Amino acid sequence: MSTPRVGVIGGGQLARMMQPAAINLGIHLRVLSATATDSAAQVIPDTVVGSHEDWEALKAFALECDVITFDHEHVPTEFLEELQNLGVAVRPGPHALRFAQDKIEMRTALTAAGIPCPKWKEITTESELVEFGDTAGWPLIIKTARGGYDGKGVWVVGSLAEALQIIGEIHAAGNRVLAEELVPFTRELAAQVARSPHGQCVAYPVVKSTQTDGICHEVIAPCPDLDPERAAQAQAMAITIANSLDVHGMLAVELFDTGTEILVNELAMRPHNSGHWSMDGAVTSQFENHLRAVLDWPLGSPAPTGPHTVMVNLLGKDLGDLHSAFRHIMARDPGIKVHLYGKEVRPGRKIGHVNATGGNIEDLLQRAWHAADYLTGVIDE
Amino acid sequence: MSTPRVGVIGGGQLARMMQPAAINLGIHLRVLSATATDSAAQVIPDTVVGSHEDWEALKAFALECDVITFDHEHVPTEFLEELQNLGVAVRPGPHALRFAQDKIEMRTALTAAGIPCPKWKEITTESELVEFGDTAGWPLIIKTARGGYDGKGVWVVGSLAEALQIIGEIHAAGNRVLAEELVPFTRELAAQVARSPHGQCVAYPVVKSTQTDGICHEVIAPCPDLDPERAAQAQAMAITIANSLDVHGMLAVELFDTGTEILVNELAMRPHNSGHWSMDGAVTSQFENHLRAVLDWPLGSPAPTGPHTVMVNLLGKDLGDLHSAFRHIMARDPGIKVHLYGKEVRPGRKIGHVNATGGNIEDLLQRAWHAADYLTGVIDE
Repeated sequence: MSTPRVGVIGGGQLARMMQPAAINLGIHLRVLSATATDSAAQVIPDTVVGSHEDWEALKAFALECDVITFDHEHVPTEFLEELQNLGVAVRPGPHALRFAQDKIEMRTALTAAGIPCPKWKEITTESELVEFGDTAGWPLIIKTARGGYDGKGVWVVGSLAEALQIIGEIHAAGNRVLAEELVPFTRELAAQVARSPHGQCVAYPVVKSTQTDGICHEVIAPCPDLDPERAAQAQAMAITIANSLDVHGMLAVELFDTGTEILVNELAMRPHNSGHWSMDGAVTSQFENHLRAVLDWPLGSPAPTGPHTVMVNLLGKDLGDLHSAFRHIMARDPGIKVHLYGKEVRPGRKIGHVNATGGNIEDLLQRAWHAADYLTGVIDE
Repeated sequence: MSTPRVGVIGGGQLARMMQPAAINLGIHLRVLSATATDSAAQVIPDTVVGSHEDWEALKAFALECDVITFDHEHVPTEFLEELQNLGVAVRPGPHALRFAQDKIEMRTALTAAGIPCPKWKEITTESELVEFGDTAGWPLIIKTARGGYDGKGVWVVGSLAEALQIIGEIHAAGNRVLAEELVPFTRELAAQVARSPHGQCVAYPVVKSTQTDGICHEVIAPCPDLDPERAAQAQAMAITIANSLDVHGMLAVELFDTGTEILVNELAMRPHNSGHWSMDGAVTSQFENHLRAVLDWPLGSPAPTGPHTVMVNLLGKDLGDLHSAFRHIMARDPGIKVHLYGKEVRPGRKIGHVNATGGNIEDLLQRAWHAADYLTGVIDE
């Protein structure tokens, strides 16, 4: 029996959460991790300490894997192309990953594929910005094309002067700039699909995602009060994107729901925070399906196991002994599922999440938020 | 945040399957494994290679853990008592574990606690055997008091001569002998509970367990067509045993159902094959609850997540490429959950299991058996 070897670039919590699925499936997981104590390095025996920006380290790591995939989207595309030239299976491939790495490339490709997006434009001059502001209205959104995540690299700007200052700084740092309309959305949705190299695609239920300061904080799966046709439309959109961009692995499509239409906000080509509910609420978690997809194995059912699952992130605050709080919330609620990432607590940092599955959304929200607030020290009873 | 450190003695699949639960809960798992390539050693970074029969190795390992627990029941009781004298938390403790290690001690304790057992007697002389045969009838069961598992150390004997020969061999090997009546059971059940040092107990649904050559092969959870009162009686029996023997961690009580009564067959004080269904079919798996129990944390809900889960073991046969067969059954059934133990295939060896959850038991049985038979090469279509 030949055990498949999947290499993950990056030792964060997404790589960590692939390990339970890998253990069950008999997959040998290895990780290229910045330190020996990163979240994933703690739980994966075959950890190689090295940087994804170090070509020699990356190459040596990748050549020992049947396929490589990612905890994050920061590996330089040219390195990935070079790995492919050496015969390494890179999934998602650089041809797809560049659309997750660069928001201008993403908007260009989606627009060409007929996918509805907010009004957008690359900004290189003041006059382009003035013209875009006249069309899209103020305030508007300024984004760096590359390098943003979790609300970083995104600014809501109310005036030309404010916008020009930020744009000047981005340009000075050698990055390109994207302006987008400020979409008057009523809620944010996420549509996740897994897609394999042989073209199989499965779509998870569309979820409602709530952000705090640009960081995903709460997810309800499936999204309540979502018209089935609208949900199917969002799933079809995610499948179209996965096919158009030839994504291998999990694709998360973050969406704005304006009440009358659905627009694409962001893409992520890896397991995503909006899918953590699937660890306890779906037949096949996003982590298992990511591994199955990058190995080109048949995909597992994305069907929910219960009527609804609510996920709430644990965002680091002033915490004492996390495991003492842990015992309290476990005693209070035997059905709550706590996931910790083994990370040191820093304010605002994602250190874990909780899931609750059941039939009554209000009850699930109350339970999940109580657990999260207690674990992060927001409340003490 | 102080990460709890749980040490597991033994590197088999039970230790391996604790690791996904440990990862989710942020528990640091370490394992004392006979080799660096044992099932659990493949997936637990903090693996110490050593023998549980080597006192110095065991002591050094245990002193670095907050609590130690077990993949198997073969650690000498005197070593465990010595560890307790050194201040190590041993769960289950040697005071409980001896009832799982020695069937005469187990029968003595259960009989004293008023728990219904098959007729039984320790046999030291021929006349005792003759007398027992007159009471219990022939054929009867001969068991070694210690060291048996998966059908090993158990004989059905039809005649006095046959029995005496086996008994002579067991005595010659320095072991004690137990005779039991051959119970005319209609089916076998298993009742599992988790119990913590502070005395909390949760009971899993009673399951139906089917053996092949003394090895658990199929489990249906919950047991179909089981009178709710009878099920509650079996759960109460398991809780009584856990309390009477002061078990910490998971306890599996294997039961004979004769149609008119329920009798205890065997005990196991660890996660058990009859509970593997819980990995995909319960809110809290037996592996998570075992860890929570030995850490004296509040226990998780043992409630099923679906109407029924069927588990079928993968028993090694003449296999070619397991992962190629794997792809076939994944493509055929996106809802089947496959668990592999990373073990080399040997005839009759447990190398994994499959779970299927849903509403129709016949459908689940058909699906789980097809997957198992295909994966083990019994069928090829």
